Parts: sequence; structure tokens; C-alpha cells
Amino acid sequence: MGRYAPGALRSFVAEALHRGGAFWEEAELVADALVCADLRGVHSHGVVRSAVYLKRLQAGSIRAGADLSVVHDAGAAVVCDAGSGFGVVAAARAMDLAVERAARYGVGAVGVRNSNHCGMLAYFTLREVARGAVGVALSNANAQVAPFGARTRYFGTNPISVGIPGGEEPPVVLDMATSEVAHGRVRAAALRGEPIPRTWALGPDGRPTTDPHEALRGALLAFGGAKGSGLALVVDVLAGLLTGAGSGPEITPLYEELDRPQGVGHLMVALWPDAFCGLSTLRGRVDRLVREVRALPPAEGFDRVWLPGEMEHRRDAEARRMGVGLPEESVLALQEVARAVGLRAPEALA
Amino acid sequence: MGRYAPGALRSFVAEALHRGGAFWEEAELVADALVCADLRGVHSHGVVRSAVYLKRLQAGSIRAGADLSVVHDAGAAVVCDAGSGFGVVAAARAMDLAVERAARYGVGAVGVRNSNHCGMLAYFTLREVARGAVGVALSNANAQVAPFGARTRYFGTNPISVGIPGGEEPPVVLDMATSEVAHGRVRAAALRGEPIPRTWALGPDGRPTTDPHEALRGALLAFGGAKGSGLALVVDVLAGLLTGAGSGPEITPLYEELDRPQGVGHLMVALWPDAFCGLSTLRGRVDRLVREVRALPPAEGFDRVWLPGEMEHRRDAEARRMGVGLPEESVLALQEVARAVGLRAPEALA
Repeated sequence: MGRYAPGALRSFVAEALHRGGAFWEEAELVADALVCADLRGVHSHGVVRSAVYLKRLQAGSIRAGADLSVVHDAGAAVVCDAGSGFGVVAAARAMDLAVERAARYGVGAVGVRNSNHCGMLAYFTLREVARGAVGVALSNANAQVAPFGARTRYFGTNPISVGIPGGEEPPVVLDMATSEVAHGRVRAAALRGEPIPRTWALGPDGRPTTDPHEALRGALLAFGGAKGSGLALVVDVLAGLLTGAGSGPEITPLYEELDRPQGVGHLMVALWPDAFCGLSTLRGRVDRLVREVRALPPAEGFDRVWLPGEMEHRRDAEARRMGVGLPEESVLALQEVARAVGLRAPEALA
Repeated sequence: MGRYAPGALRSFVAEALHRGGAFWEEAELVADALVCADLRGVHSHGVVRSAVYLKRLQAGSIRAGADLSVVHDAGAAVVCDAGSGFGVVAAARAMDLAVERAARYGVGAVGVRNSNHCGMLAYFTLREVARGAVGVALSNANAQVAPFGARTRYFGTNPISVGIPGGEEPPVVLDMATSEVAHGRVRAAALRGEPIPRTWALGPDGRPTTDPHEALRGALLAFGGAKGSGLALVVDVLAGLLTGAGSGPEITPLYEELDRPQGVGHLMVALWPDAFCGLSTLRGRVDRLVREVRALPPAEGFDRVWLPGEMEHRRDAEARRMGVGLPEESVLALQEVARAVGLRAPEALA
């Protein structure tokens, strides 16, 4: 796994998207979000996605320079139309607006319709945390997951992220798909010809399968059975139906029909701690909770207890020191992007 | 399982709590919430709890006539102190306030500190749905669940409920503990001398156990591994730390130290559909989603696909027609309550 300078990756992705038609402001924001994911070791949502974003940009399904326009403004709740712009840009702006409203009213909720794939949700909840808010981000996605008890797809992988500011401790950042695993992990197993656990997916016959090829023709399973499936539904309703965006089956998959906007929806919620117990009190209490949980005796088979987002925070710190390690798939995507726009791909650090 | 008239159960519980010192208004609200749970077949949160509520009321840890006083009011977000009153009453009033603020600002979030066990969360989200809002209810609870990777308890069973208004279809109501199962199910297995699945709990040695007695001395497991554990943490932070309530390890268990207030926290959030896509649009889209999901072909081992809360809705309809079936444990609790306050316990329908 070669290592890369974070700034070089950001510059490259931004320049490439700019050559593809993106405004500088949005190109740099998308580049920052993708590199943030790689820094945290979440490579599935890192620069590897720049290739498909570029294709959608060039095909017009991601519209350059789209504004996040306000459709309805009730004060603490706002609904926006992303105008088929970059999902990352719409989600970041919506999040900033949610924080602004939370600072004024104690809580802010911003719904987004007509958006596209917005990448790693932790990017947005970390943004809220940096401003001293508690952040909740939901996004829906195209149908890939079978509702509990069904054999066919309906829900997206519909992720949920919650960011909580710490004091001396790093923030707690939960960021999880409501599917048992991401689609990419099944695809990776298929490429490597390896079996998958029976808890990941159903085949086209509606039975749990260990064959990743069968799984790709079938449906992913929600995590945690009926409960995870219920949460996937809730995300589809809150981020999709309520905001006026598409629901799972109406959303265009990221890698198909590249000239067609996806119609993804997001819901960003910010809670302003000073409207509750106070930010400094919250920071102190979160620090204590984090330290107490981390110090619990580990269960059999574990070395220690990790807080949500703690491992990603460590990887981020290491990558900022040592450079960002990129898996082969990401390197290949960067090379593809470089060829498409006539740039030189970033080179690994010596 | 004997059947009872719902109104007779409500009258009995209200009268008993009134004799225990509760004001009529709160006694009737608690009675309605408990019977609502039994109507829905959620007997673990039904009239069976009237016995411990009465004991706590008589011991002073549930304070009769407590107001829900506003500690801080930021407009859309409000923090309240329940004054150690009935959790059910505090949660219901907080929910009503959240809906009121949502109608004004688009979203409302009401945190509650110094509260007690509030029973089945679906009671409150159904309340929001009846007023045309989307409702989210969170409550924390005393430490019973081991964080993912730990061998000892820290989080409560920290439930989450989300209520979504339908149109012609009944509302979708998710209501789930973030533990794999409720503590009561382990206790029931211990009483019957039956083994439990290895996914439910750890023994005191930190290993998954099938022995319910070992489990009771150990810790429950979160549902869905690290993800469910992360959600349990989020509920503890949002309902507990942020509101200024206790966190898991600080909360007094419902059935221990009966003279000590529990210090539970709740967070009630309401989203006002007319601030988003509009209530009638939402109702129509939810109906369509419900019908599409219900009509999906079932997976192996399933007869059909059920929506969250749909089975409870059916049981409710049946119980309203036929009377409420009560399990033996509930009947015994009613008899205990009757003896304690000098009332006749309700009689089963002939």
C-alpha cells in the first residue's frame, strides 16, 4: 500500500474535477471530503470515488455550480433542493445551515432533495462537532438491502452518522451503514473469488448465501435483523420521503445510468449543546464516558474496548504524520481520472 | 391467558395509583400508557409495571404531582426537569411540547432530566403521529448492556422509537431496545429454567453464555454488534448527558433502591411534515412504501414481510375488539397492587 501526501491528493482531485467542469469551490470541497475518508482509513468512500463523480459530472448528472436552494424555511427546519449538484457539497452546506439554525433555535434540521451520493457521512458530522454542535446525518441510497423477511431489495444501505464533541478526548463519531456490510465488500470478495459470511446477503432465491456472485444478484441483509431493517426504513423515510427526495427504489444507483441524476436525499440535524446542558459540561461528561468505556475489562476475544470513530481517529492521526496509504483500487481510480482529464496521477511517497 | 376490558384495567390502575398518592391526571395518564402497551401485546411494558410504580410512588422516589419545569428554552429546543415525577407523565408532556415547537419552527427537541422509567416509547411517538408529526423518542436506562468488546455492563437497554404517520395505512412505529433482548426475557428464561441463545448475553467471565442465571450476573449484549452498541452510546449521550440527566452507570435500576429517584433522561424530537414535503404528501408516500414493502416476496422461512409496529397494530385492533389478554405475571402484579391499596383486582371477562 503506497503512501501519498494528503495535500497532493486533494490538489489532484480538485484539479481533475475542475477540468471536468466543477467550480473550484465545489471541487476543493469534494476533494477534501474524499481525502478525509482516506485519512480515516475509510477507503471505500475516499478518492476511489473521484472516478465515478467525474464521469457523472461529465455526463451532466452531477451539475456543476448547482446552488443549494431553499424550498421551505420554517426557522429551525429548512428544506433545500440540491439541483443535482455534488452530494458532498449539498450535504456540507446543509450541515452548515443546520448548525446555524441550531445556534439560533437550539436544534436545526435541514432536509435535502435532488442530491447525489454524498460520501462518508462522518465528514459532515465532524464538521458539526468542530463548530461545537452534536450532529446527526442521514442519507438514503438506491435499493440494495432486503427488508427483514423479504427476499428482494428495497432499502438502500442508508447510513447514519452521529458526531459528539469531546473535550480532551477526540469526538465520538458513529458512522454506519444500516446494511450488515457495504456493497463494496461483497464486490471485493467476488473479485478475489472468496466466500462471504452467511449473514451478509441473500441470493436471488431468497436464501442466505456464501457465494458473493449470488449475493450480487440478490440482496444485502440489514444489520441486526428486524431492528436494523427498521432503522433502514426510518432513514429512507426521514432522508427520502420527508425531504421530498426519492426513496430507495426510485434512486439511480451511483454506478449505473451515469447521465441520470440519482435523486438522493439527506437529513442533517444539529443540536446546540448550550441549549441543553452547556457545551463545556457536555465535553466533560463525554470525556468521562469515553474514558470509562475504554477502561472496561475486554470480553473474550478482544484486547480492549474501542469507542465509535476512535480507530478512524487514530488512523487519521497516523496518516497526517506518515502520509495516506491507498489501496490498489484507489490508485487505479486516480490513474483513470488522470487519463480522463490529461493530468499526471499523484505519485507515492518514496 | 385471561382477557380483560381495557377500560376496567385503566380505571383500576388509575385508582390504585391515586390511592398511592398520585394526582388523578397523572394516574390516568400512566394507566393509559400501561394499558396501551398491553393492547399492543407489549406486556413487558404494560400493567405489570404498575406494581413497581406504586412502590416507588409510596417510597417517594416517584414524586406525586411533579411539574415538568422548563430549565432552558431556546425556542425549538427546550430542556425540562421532571422533578422525579412519573417518567410516563414527563415523557408525554415533553412530547407534547416537542410537537408544539415543531409546529412553530419545523422541528422541536425536548430534553428531560430527573425523570423515571417511562415505559413503552411507542406510546409517545404514537402521540406525535396522532398530531400529524414524525416523532423520535429516546430514553436511557440503568447499566445492563456491555459495550461492544467489553465484558461488563455500562449502557442501559436505551430504546429508540420512531413514529411515522401513514394515510390509509396504520402508522409505521419502530420501537426497539438497543440490547439484543430485554432484561425481562432473560429473567423469564431463568424462572422457567430454559437456556438462552448465545447472542443474548455474557456471563460474569465475559464469555457468551446460554445459562440465564450466568447472564443475569453478567451483561446483556447490544443488538447487531458494534453498530447496536454505538447506537446505545448515542442514546445515552443524547437522552442522558446532553439533557443533564444521569448516564447509564449513574441511573438507579427500576427494581432496586426503591426510595431513590432513578435519574433517567429522555429526548423527544418532533418533525413537522408541513415544514418538509407536506403532511398529505408524506402520508401518501408512506402508504406507498408500506404497501410495496409488504408486497415483497418473502425470504426463506418467512410467510410475509411485516412493517415496524404492524404486528402490534393488529394486536391492538384485536384487543380492542376482544379484550386485552394478560399473561400470568401481569395478573399477579395487579393482584399485588390491589392488596397494597385495598382495591379488588379487575376480573377476567367470562
